[in-house]
Amino acid sequence: MGKIRIGIMGYGNLGRGVELAIRQNPDTELVAVFTRRNPADLKIKTEGVPVIAADKAAEMKDKIDVLILCGGSATDLGVQGPEYAKYFNTIDSFDTHAKIPQYFANVDKSAKDNGHVSIISVGWDPGLFSLNRLYAESILPDGENYTFWGKGVSQGHSDAIRRIKGVAGAIQYTIPIEEAMDRVRSGENPELSVREKHTRECFVVAEDGADKAEIERQIKTMPNYFDEYDTVVHFISAEELREKHGKMAHGGFVIRSGKTLGGNNHIIEYSLKLDSNPEFTSSVLVAYARAAFRLSQKGDMGAKTVFDIAPALLSPKSGEEIRGSLL
Amino acid sequence: MGKIRIGIMGYGNLGRGVELAIRQNPDTELVAVFTRRNPADLKIKTEGVPVIAADKAAEMKDKIDVLILCGGSATDLGVQGPEYAKYFNTIDSFDTHAKIPQYFANVDKSAKDNGHVSIISVGWDPGLFSLNRLYAESILPDGENYTFWGKGVSQGHSDAIRRIKGVAGAIQYTIPIEEAMDRVRSGENPELSVREKHTRECFVVAEDGADKAEIERQIKTMPNYFDEYDTVVHFISAEELREKHGKMAHGGFVIRSGKTLGGNNHIIEYSLKLDSNPEFTSSVLVAYARAAFRLSQKGDMGAKTVFDIAPALLSPKSGEEIRGSLL
Repeated sequence: MGKIRIGIMGYGNLGRGVELAIRQNPDTELVAVFTRRNPADLKIKTEGVPVIAADKAAEMKDKIDVLILCGGSATDLGVQGPEYAKYFNTIDSFDTHAKIPQYFANVDKSAKDNGHVSIISVGWDPGLFSLNRLYAESILPDGENYTFWGKGVSQGHSDAIRRIKGVAGAIQYTIPIEEAMDRVRSGENPELSVREKHTRECFVVAEDGADKAEIERQIKTMPNYFDEYDTVVHFISAEELREKHGKMAHGGFVIRSGKTLGGNNHIIEYSLKLDSNPEFTSSVLVAYARAAFRLSQKGDMGAKTVFDIAPALLSPKSGEEIRGSLL
Repeated sequence: MGKIRIGIMGYGNLGRGVELAIRQNPDTELVAVFTRRNPADLKIKTEGVPVIAADKAAEMKDKIDVLILCGGSATDLGVQGPEYAKYFNTIDSFDTHAKIPQYFANVDKSAKDNGHVSIISVGWDPGLFSLNRLYAESILPDGENYTFWGKGVSQGHSDAIRRIKGVAGAIQYTIPIEEAMDRVRSGENPELSVREKHTRECFVVAEDGADKAEIERQIKTMPNYFDEYDTVVHFISAEELREKHGKMAHGGFVIRSGKTLGGNNHIIEYSLKLDSNPEFTSSVLVAYARAAFRLSQKGDMGAKTVFDIAPALLSPKSGEEIRGSLL
């Protein structure tokens, strides 16, 4: 059997991660990278694979089994998801929670009209964390799910700080509060306020002569982003920001605490500790590309989420092998 | 829509747990309990539900959507699995790893010949732990899975101690070694011997006049069960055994440590802390009964494992609801 032929749409952190993940999965191969930049300016890591202008992607429709959309949810995927589901089976990591129902409907129509499978919102949250919330809730219906994120960089919060006048650079870490996690693990099912679950730590480079006290005040009182949290602000040099805060580590915890009717309590905990958020997310995308390909081969079509994918479809091994080695 | 009509085969700890779990899932109802004992001698907790002799189960085949087999792997399920798949969709917790391929084949033939769905080896290990080994391996192909069990009672090891001459009662706890887990979590991918992963702690009631030193020697040197472990033996009174060691708590950890090609390490950890092993296992069985019913309604048939079941099938909620609330 031939390899699963994968295309990458967008060559940022995520696209580069997918390129690496494909090399770790011998049943997959990279056949094209698509970019909105000038293809001639883009140097990729895989020899012999063409870089093609994004607007010519449809011409490759018979040469690609699954196209992995590596753009962002804010501006790219809303358009790209339904558009590329016309020509390809697709995988994306759409993560704007409030817009998922509409996005799912748009992609579903396009995929069904054109006979493709599109798995949306793949990654770790949404993605693996969602799966764990679902499994745990289905098994322990009388209980609560708790999700904690971090320690890790929030891109949205870092961007919000950078927009403040006088800020030359910034990074923001979301940090789960250990005490809150321990209360959840104890089985007490606490009601936790936003402030009780996470703290926010900011490393900020101020422009020369900027009013640091005013920057700190603006960060700490920023509505939605910071005002409901205990926030710590550190001013550092541009060198220190570059040297000490370039890692894209992240992670988090999904904990369910629930009771069975014999009066017994049970804790289900899932956690990730990721040295590179984009490389890990990319690895999830490639595993789900395998599933999309297999579903498409069986004649399935339409939009799916991780909830719809039988776990066996993610593994390169046969049913017999996974029953023998992993069950 | 009517409720999912569930039958329970065997009314031990697991059967009683299933009875409780059905009450927590309003889309399911208990319609019969089957027993090999005299039905008149069995008092169940649900009013109005008949207790029926196991050898008359087939007569109920049109009144039950899913039969949950609550017998043990050692002697019951090998026969019951293929037998009851003739008449019912079934769920079981078959856990003799070496015999799973043959058992799967036997149940598969029976289920397919008769148009039923049978999900085998459901619970937490095999079951939820298997799922986590599969998900984690599929996402991080370059890495290692580590499974630690406990702290919890091993029924097999407790039984083995009870067979020693001079032993009036015993219970054995399997305890994971924290230091080994921390090495795994550090990303070093250690090779761990049996002795380095778990210790075994035994609480033993000796008969009057029994040679305690000899009992301890026999436990610690028992091949397969204890000789490869560091084992601690405590002699206690029958009262203490009854009062302090009646709980059926258990749990464990599945940890995968893997690398992506950018040189970054990632840790995926799943853990369970269960105050009642049978009540939790039963809750898993009932969630998978829902999935078996739905697959059967769609015309699917044959033996399945947790690997084959799309997570959405476990939840009573619609696809729209789970995308809205859990994704």
